Amino acid sequence: MLGKQRRIALMAEGSFTLLDAKTALGVIRYRPEEVVAVIDSSRAGRTSEDCVGAGGDIPVVAGLEAAAALGADTLLLGIAPQGGTLPGSWRNVVAEALRRGWDILSGLHVFLADDPELASLAARHNCSILDVRRPPAARPIAARRAANLDAVVVLTVGSDCNVGKMTTALELHAELQGRGARSAFVATGQTGIFVADQGAAVDAITADFVAGVVERMVLDAARDADIVLVEGQGALHHPAYSGVALSLMHGACPEALVLCHQAGRTHMKLADAGPAPRIRALSEIIRDNERAASWVRVAPVLGLSINTMMLDDLEARRTLENVSQLTGLPSMDPVRYGAEAVATELMRRVDERKRRASNE
Amino acid sequence: MLGKQRRIALMAEGSFTLLDAKTALGVIRYRPEEVVAVIDSSRAGRTSEDCVGAGGDIPVVAGLEAAAALGADTLLLGIAPQGGTLPGSWRNVVAEALRRGWDILSGLHVFLADDPELASLAARHNCSILDVRRPPAARPIAARRAANLDAVVVLTVGSDCNVGKMTTALELHAELQGRGARSAFVATGQTGIFVADQGAAVDAITADFVAGVVERMVLDAARDADIVLVEGQGALHHPAYSGVALSLMHGACPEALVLCHQAGRTHMKLADAGPAPRIRALSEIIRDNERAASWVRVAPVLGLSINTMMLDDLEARRTLENVSQLTGLPSMDPVRYGAEAVATELMRRVDERKRRASNE
Repeated sequence: MLGKQRRIALMAEGSFTLLDAKTALGVIRYRPEEVVAVIDSSRAGRTSEDCVGAGGDIPVVAGLEAAAALGADTLLLGIAPQGGTLPGSWRNVVAEALRRGWDILSGLHVFLADDPELASLAARHNCSILDVRRPPAARPIAARRAANLDAVVVLTVGSDCNVGKMTTALELHAELQGRGARSAFVATGQTGIFVADQGAAVDAITADFVAGVVERMVLDAARDADIVLVEGQGALHHPAYSGVALSLMHGACPEALVLCHQAGRTHMKLADAGPAPRIRALSEIIRDNERAASWVRVAPVLGLSINTMMLDDLEARRTLENVSQLTGLPSMDPVRYGAEAVATELMRRVDERKRRASNE
Repeated sequence: MLGKQRRIALMAEGSFTLLDAKTALGVIRYRPEEVVAVIDSSRAGRTSEDCVGAGGDIPVVAGLEAAAALGADTLLLGIAPQGGTLPGSWRNVVAEALRRGWDILSGLHVFLADDPELASLAARHNCSILDVRRPPAARPIAARRAANLDAVVVLTVGSDCNVGKMTTALELHAELQGRGARSAFVATGQTGIFVADQGAAVDAITADFVAGVVERMVLDAARDADIVLVEGQGALHHPAYSGVALSLMHGACPEALVLCHQAGRTHMKLADAGPAPRIRALSEIIRDNERAASWVRVAPVLGLSINTMMLDDLEARRTLENVSQLTGLPSMDPVRYGAEAVATELMRRVDERKRRASNE
């Protein structure tokens, strides 16, 4: 698929909203030039901007036929259902896209390329199925190798899943590149991979090798960068995904953290009903993340990234002020107001390191 | 293989020592009646007791031929190399065992049953290959479901890998059953599975589902038990395996922990050269494990299990005393002196819970 200009139809049937279409929104926000349509029959006729506040005039259409008329040649499965299986009704859509000769980009836990029917359809119509969650073949074991890099390694951590860890890393990356810094982004989830065209979906890796795979990606990224921004996954306090978060942290060996949180969210999202655990005070989450990082390498939280999308402008600015007062740290909503607060501190660290190196 | 009386030859070529033969030692200690020989040509002619201090007269032999003469009908791969691949020279041994009609029990990360040559040999000679590390087909997502069980759920945690977490859980299990308690053991690693004939090797599970698989095993075990002893894996402070340890902790939702440590070990074992991280003070490890557990459910460390195998009796008793004084907690070496200290506290918790239930 590399080198080919993709014209993507984003599949988000029945779920093209800010809350449900995390992957679709990420692709729309960071690869807008490749998206020709979003498929969601329940919202057909509207625009992307209208549904998720991003993507401008990208049209929402009812199905493949309408997307084809707009020139789509790739179907991207823009959902991340828990458990990761393919909703029954979507299977037919994938098959139909392959019959039209479209390529498939999938972030599902279930690998579409391993499905005999879909694979043979792809072969017959000369198109490809890329399962971005397929783990790398290598099985590396981490050994704190990323702890001694010259580059400043930064990890985004969260108060819960789906609070803006990838977005924060990407916005910092853009801000730093805008300032001329040599910055690199390490994608660790399906959406990040769609955006960066590389990376590994760490939650799909065999548990023993998660930290090792992250370590390798950070070492690779540090070759050409002064700042490596690692996309966090899960949350230390989340009952289902805490282990992934800790593996990632200890594989990446960051020297600094950015804590991401969604304003107004009070409880964590669990797999099903039952009492969802309360999100703790930010000061407690900061302390716990710093403590866990220190088991391998000391890493302070440099600042907070607060997703204020559910608030109006006045509320949002007040919230950021409150968070800064409560924690004594800079806070930002990078999507809304930019990522200066933390970017400046990262630039300072790079400069300091260069000064120290030239003095030696 | 179920229902069949196994006559096991334990493969430990070149590594049948206390330090290297972790799996072999576990099987010898807890399933001695099934082991007819250990294969290690460099120690042929000696006894198991002589090599690893357990297993009595079980003979160490040079190869399959000698094991066959003792009636072996099953080859168990008793190594757990980091990375989990099959050492080249062992492949021939596995093939040869299959040609003799032996079953294979393997705990390697690489699944022998997926090897076309070995699989076809197994089919031709009507024998089976059981890869105990093969993850379960289910992909459950944890949701703190084990936090509200009537049973007392206990997790063994460690200062490092390979310090006695499985052994401590099994010794507690035996002690509790000896006292008439309804105790269950949840195996989470290859050796534990060989011993218990069930369980799941959590480090081989896709990262997203580790906590969920553990949660299910704990819920299952609690159906017929008042005490569920969960075998820990890895260590929160280990750069490579911390995530597995935390997933396990948050899936199991224990109400109490037992911290395992090997007396005299000062540094953690890493995958390769480079400076191995120092093992922290036990009081710090206790605090960090209690803190991490509390993110999902409060769980105090009830006591310490100290592996004193490298010490003589006097040193061992002194060490246990010192550890108790330093931490203010009971300490034990369950293999050497029994598991009373912690078992008594667990019985007390069960009694208290029953009293409370009958008062309601």
